[in-house]
Amino acid sequence: MSAARTPVDASLETIVQQTLRNAAADSLVELAPTLVRDLTEIDWRVAEVLGSTYAQLTEAARYACSTGGKRVRPLLMAVAHRALGSETTQPIHSLAAAFQLIHTATLVHDDVIDHAETRRGRPSMPRAFGIPLAIVSGDYLFVRAFELAAEYPRSIIMRCGEACADLVEGEVLQEASRFDLSSGRDHYFRVIERKTAAIIAAALTSVAEIAAAGPAVVDALQGYGRALGLAFQIRDDLLDVYGDPDLLGKPLFGDLREGNPTLLSLETYARLDPRHQAEFERLFQLRRKRAKHLLRLRDLTQMTDASDVVAREATDWVDRGIHCLEALPNGPYRRLLEQLARGAAARRF
Amino acid sequence: MSAARTPVDASLETIVQQTLRNAAADSLVELAPTLVRDLTEIDWRVAEVLGSTYAQLTEAARYACSTGGKRVRPLLMAVAHRALGSETTQPIHSLAAAFQLIHTATLVHDDVIDHAETRRGRPSMPRAFGIPLAIVSGDYLFVRAFELAAEYPRSIIMRCGEACADLVEGEVLQEASRFDLSSGRDHYFRVIERKTAAIIAAALTSVAEIAAAGPAVVDALQGYGRALGLAFQIRDDLLDVYGDPDLLGKPLFGDLREGNPTLLSLETYARLDPRHQAEFERLFQLRRKRAKHLLRLRDLTQMTDASDVVAREATDWVDRGIHCLEALPNGPYRRLLEQLARGAAARRF
Repeated sequence: MSAARTPVDASLETIVQQTLRNAAADSLVELAPTLVRDLTEIDWRVAEVLGSTYAQLTEAARYACSTGGKRVRPLLMAVAHRALGSETTQPIHSLAAAFQLIHTATLVHDDVIDHAETRRGRPSMPRAFGIPLAIVSGDYLFVRAFELAAEYPRSIIMRCGEACADLVEGEVLQEASRFDLSSGRDHYFRVIERKTAAIIAAALTSVAEIAAAGPAVVDALQGYGRALGLAFQIRDDLLDVYGDPDLLGKPLFGDLREGNPTLLSLETYARLDPRHQAEFERLFQLRRKRAKHLLRLRDLTQMTDASDVVAREATDWVDRGIHCLEALPNGPYRRLLEQLARGAAARRF
Repeated sequence: MSAARTPVDASLETIVQQTLRNAAADSLVELAPTLVRDLTEIDWRVAEVLGSTYAQLTEAARYACSTGGKRVRPLLMAVAHRALGSETTQPIHSLAAAFQLIHTATLVHDDVIDHAETRRGRPSMPRAFGIPLAIVSGDYLFVRAFELAAEYPRSIIMRCGEACADLVEGEVLQEASRFDLSSGRDHYFRVIERKTAAIIAAALTSVAEIAAAGPAVVDALQGYGRALGLAFQIRDDLLDVYGDPDLLGKPLFGDLREGNPTLLSLETYARLDPRHQAEFERLFQLRRKRAKHLLRLRDLTQMTDASDVVAREATDWVDRGIHCLEALPNGPYRRLLEQLARGAAARRF
C-alpha cells in the first residue's frame, strides 16, 4: 500500500532526542532508540489510514499530520505502556494514532476559527488549502480516528468519544470567555481541563486498560495524565508571551491577540494597581491589537510577579502528577514519565 | 434524564403524513402511525445523546437537529427494517440516530463553507450561533454519532466510518469543480455518489446486517439505497432552480450562486448553441451573482430540454432502485420503499 511508503518526517528522532535530553540528565537517554521505533510505527499507522481514493484529500490530511508536532500524546502512551511492563507497544499503536489524529483535527479546526496563519513553522491548513478544505479535512481526520478506535473494546471507544466531547466543550467554553478578563480562574481551569487534560488522561487510562492494569494503576495514570495536561497548558500560556517564536514555530501573543484569558493574563490583571489594571483591560479587549499594544501588555505583565506565580502553579501540577506515578512499578520508564512531566513545565517549544 | 423530556418538534407526524400522502395513493397511509412512533423514538435517541454539561453546546447541537428536516435516512431505515420482517425497529434506533447526526453535522459544516444564511426556513447554524460554535458543534455531532455507532459490531462502525470518509471526499471533489462547467457528468456522479448515495446505501446495508439478512437482500438494499440517493440528489438540482423556496425552507439558486455544476447546469450547457453557451458559462462563473444573473441562467436553462432530460434521469434511477427491491419479501413495507423512491424523484421539498 503506497500509504505506508514514506513513514515519517526525518525530525522524529530529533524530537525524541530533544525531549529526552531536555528532560533527562541521566541514563534515560538510552531509551530513545526504542521510543523512536515506537513513534515511527505509530506514524506509519497514521499515514496508512489517511490514504483516500482522492489525492487532494490525502495530501491535505497528510500535510496536517506531517508538520513535525511534538507527538506528546503518542510518546506518553508508548512510555506508559512500557512502564506497565509491556515488551511491545504494538497493542496501542492504533489507539495512539487515533489520539494523534483527534489532536490534529482539533488543531486544524482551531486554525480555521482563530484565522491562524502559521502552525509549526509552516502555513496553517486554512492558509495552505483554503477554509473549505481545512474544515472537511478536519472532519476526515476525526472519521479516521474513530475507525482506528473501532479496533478496541467499546469502553475504549466510548472513553475516546467522551474525551472528544470534552474537547469540543472546552472550545465552546473558551469561545464564551473571549476578551473577558472577568471570566476568572475557575473558568480558565474548566477550559483547559477539557481542552488539554481530558484527552491526555483518556489516552493514558486507555493504555492502562489495554495493558490489563489494576484499578489503582488506571487511576494513577488518569491523575498523572490530567496533571501533566494542565501543566503543559499552563506552560503554553507562558510561552505565548515569553517563548521563542522560532522554536515554537508560530508567532508570539496568539492568546492575547485572540483575547483568550490565560492564567498569566488573569493573574496579571488581578495583581495590577487600578490604573494599570484599567489599561491592561482596555488593551486586552481590543479586537485588533497592533505590535505596540501586545508589547505594552507584556510590559504590564512584567510589572507583576504573575509569571513566577504561574510557573510555580505549573510546577505544582507536575509534582502532583509525579506523586500519582507512585502506584506504578518502579523502573526506567516510570522515571521517564516523571521526567516528561517535568519537561512539560520547563519546555521551550 | 432531562434530555429525553421533549421528544420532537410537532411536525414529525406532518412530515410522515406528507411523505406518505405524496407517495402513496393506496392503503400504505395506514402505516403512518407506526412510522411516526419509530421516528419519535429515534428523535428521542438523538436528543438524549446531545446532552452536554455545558448548556450552550447542548442548545446549539439541538438547534441543528431540531429544524424539522425530512428525516429521510431514519425513515428509510425504519421502513427497510420492517420490510425485512422485524416487529420492532428498536435494534436500529441508535444507528438511525447516528446517521441522522452525521447528516446534520455535514449540513452544519456545509453551511459554514457555503456561507448559507438559512436552512429549513430558519437561520443557519453559523448565522444563529457564529462560525466558531458552528464548526465545533458539527464536530460534536460527529463525535456523538460515533458513540452511538459504537453500540454495534465493528463491521457496522467501519461501514459508517467509510461512508463518512466518502462524504468528505464528495465535499472535496465538489470544491474542486466549483465554477467549472467543464468538470462534466462523470465528475458530477462521483460527487453525488459520495455526498449522498454512499451514506444512504451504508445505512440500509447496516439495517440488513442487523436484521441478519442474507447476502442477496444486503446487496438489494445497498443498490436501492444508492439509486434512491442519486435520484434524490438529482431532484435536488431541479428544485434548486424550479422549487418553491417556502416549501424548501431555503432560497433558490444556492447551487448556481456557489458555482456547483449540477446535472441540470451541465446538461443545459451541453445543449445551448455556442452564443448562449458562452453567455451561460460567463454568468455561471460570476463569483457574486445578482438576481438578474440568476434569472437569466434560469431563462437559458429553459431554452433547452435539460430539465426534462434530468427529470427522466432521476426517474431512471428510481426504476433501478425499485428493481433491486425484488430480492426483498413482498409486503406493505416493500411497497412503501418503492413509493418512497418514487417520492424522492417527485418531491417538492
